[in-house]
Amino acid sequence: MGNFLKTVLFISLIFTTSLVAKEKVYKLKMATTWGPTLSPLIDAANNMAAMAKALSNGRLDIRVDTANKHKSPLGVLDMVKGGQYDMGHTASYYWKGKDINTLPFTSMPFGLTAPEQYAWFYHGGGLELMQKVYAKHHVYSFPGGSTGVQMGGWFRKEIKTLDDLKGLKMRIPGFAGEIMAKLGVQVTNIAPGELFNSLETNAIDALEWVGPSMDIKMGFHKIAPYYYTGWHEPASEMQFLINRKAFDKLPKDLQEILRVSMRLAAYDMYIQNYDMNATAWQEMKKEYPNIKVKTLSKPIMDAMKKANQELIEQMTANNPLLKEVLDSQHAYLKKVREWSKMSDYLYLKDNQ
Amino acid sequence: MGNFLKTVLFISLIFTTSLVAKEKVYKLKMATTWGPTLSPLIDAANNMAAMAKALSNGRLDIRVDTANKHKSPLGVLDMVKGGQYDMGHTASYYWKGKDINTLPFTSMPFGLTAPEQYAWFYHGGGLELMQKVYAKHHVYSFPGGSTGVQMGGWFRKEIKTLDDLKGLKMRIPGFAGEIMAKLGVQVTNIAPGELFNSLETNAIDALEWVGPSMDIKMGFHKIAPYYYTGWHEPASEMQFLINRKAFDKLPKDLQEILRVSMRLAAYDMYIQNYDMNATAWQEMKKEYPNIKVKTLSKPIMDAMKKANQELIEQMTANNPLLKEVLDSQHAYLKKVREWSKMSDYLYLKDNQ
Repeated sequence: MGNFLKTVLFISLIFTTSLVAKEKVYKLKMATTWGPTLSPLIDAANNMAAMAKALSNGRLDIRVDTANKHKSPLGVLDMVKGGQYDMGHTASYYWKGKDINTLPFTSMPFGLTAPEQYAWFYHGGGLELMQKVYAKHHVYSFPGGSTGVQMGGWFRKEIKTLDDLKGLKMRIPGFAGEIMAKLGVQVTNIAPGELFNSLETNAIDALEWVGPSMDIKMGFHKIAPYYYTGWHEPASEMQFLINRKAFDKLPKDLQEILRVSMRLAAYDMYIQNYDMNATAWQEMKKEYPNIKVKTLSKPIMDAMKKANQELIEQMTANNPLLKEVLDSQHAYLKKVREWSKMSDYLYLKDNQ
Repeated sequence: MGNFLKTVLFISLIFTTSLVAKEKVYKLKMATTWGPTLSPLIDAANNMAAMAKALSNGRLDIRVDTANKHKSPLGVLDMVKGGQYDMGHTASYYWKGKDINTLPFTSMPFGLTAPEQYAWFYHGGGLELMQKVYAKHHVYSFPGGSTGVQMGGWFRKEIKTLDDLKGLKMRIPGFAGEIMAKLGVQVTNIAPGELFNSLETNAIDALEWVGPSMDIKMGFHKIAPYYYTGWHEPASEMQFLINRKAFDKLPKDLQEILRVSMRLAAYDMYIQNYDMNATAWQEMKKEYPNIKVKTLSKPIMDAMKKANQELIEQMTANNPLLKEVLDSQHAYLKKVREWSKMSDYLYLKDNQ
């Protein structure tokens, strides 16, 4: 074989090798907190994985394991931190028992609405604060889809005064439950599968779930006619988690594909759920025209806001990082709410 | 050279060739209606191009030409249709003079808000109707970023009654201008560069521009203290255009990269502008505390809604496709607004 041909062969092999390396498939595993049918939450996870695969021409292959498979819906942070999974799709406030600083990245009572909160994440320093909080867990955290305003819950009886709340047995978990407890509500936690039965047999008087899109399958509207508007989770943002090492070793273009797929899947879920809520609410009302949409009275709202403020002061007293996050949200809310009031609020007021 | 080596050389060359073909760079040109500094509109175009480049590892190279370069801000549809440009970033209602059916894809008076409209596009059949309208122009059209609620405009004097509108000289272009004309407003169109001067010298009494984020640079708040809330463009959606042939000949993965980059750049612009509006409004109010945010009275709103309805009936009388689009929006609004009222509206009402 002549030198020329040898050179051609050599160059050609080197070139092929380098291109083949670029075509390497990166396989990641993602654990979700959700079961396989929990729309729209599970859709955000699946859509993200499908998008990453299509955008990368198959080079990024993310396997989505639902909670039915890994059996540890509330172990997602630990599994991603420990490297059993590369990624997770879940919600930040589930980790408040391990690390209270994770609480504000889902939604806070009387807090930001969905567009306000996305603006805080992407333009108000929220995304950076989220990384600061999650650094000690060796993961990156990103917005994973907003439910929009969650409803205040289903009540068998109308709530008119603060007295009506005293002794009321209600399923309302997390921070919202702590606020309700301060108002005298007897807060209980019950597994989702038991909720309908508990409400039907008066074991509980009221419960909070999500909103029409997810409540409709649970059937609460068939037994509890008072549907209270939301105050406690005005824009619950789901969460994508990624193990830092797994992310950092991806090629730059795949990192960008992942970031874009997560950001878009999150927005898409917000819009999907907006549509699902509208459709589910139309169906519910048609089938059960007696459902009454109610707003808690001003004295109740004021008492809840006061309880919220007291709890926040307790939590932040010796925790400068949590204070930094909540102060950032509060300052942003103060600015952005002025705009929401003169735009969305006044427009919707005049166009009912 | 032995047969084995020949075979290796052959396979290796074929493989290299096919991989090199996959690495081919596709160069597209995009014309925008905007100048180079018109944030956030021009940002959506630039962000989309940057995203497409990063996601494709450089294989999709979109050159963005602003109006300063191609000198034809309102020629974008024609240029994309004719193939001088492959893509455009603009707004659909600019083409209503050529094809009235393009009007509803930006925003309609008393119509859908931003999340409602995105839900209509992606889950209510809106995107499909947009392709149906644009097929005859040989382009595909996609949402290109929402301004959110646009403000009703700056007025030198307060508008209390319908009589105050009679003879009022106002710059308000397009369909909103036709509604105002029906109420006796003397509608004028004035080039953007002349607007401040016209308002200052009382050549006009009022004008509509966009919202705080874009109005602040124009300085209208320095001379017209009444800032009316919006009714005419509750969610003006910009537009990406692509020549059908140019899109169809792209490899499948680059088509997906383009679709994803456009959809994400659109949502991102909505959130960016939400933040910019909040920030600009805070600045305006600080510098000019006398600015008064006003809502047009119910009799005026009712008269405008009636005029709007009459104009729509005229437009759709002999135009089944326009009727199909507007009926689709109207039916979707009827459903989705119920949800907006019980979620965003009632939440904002209780959290002012």
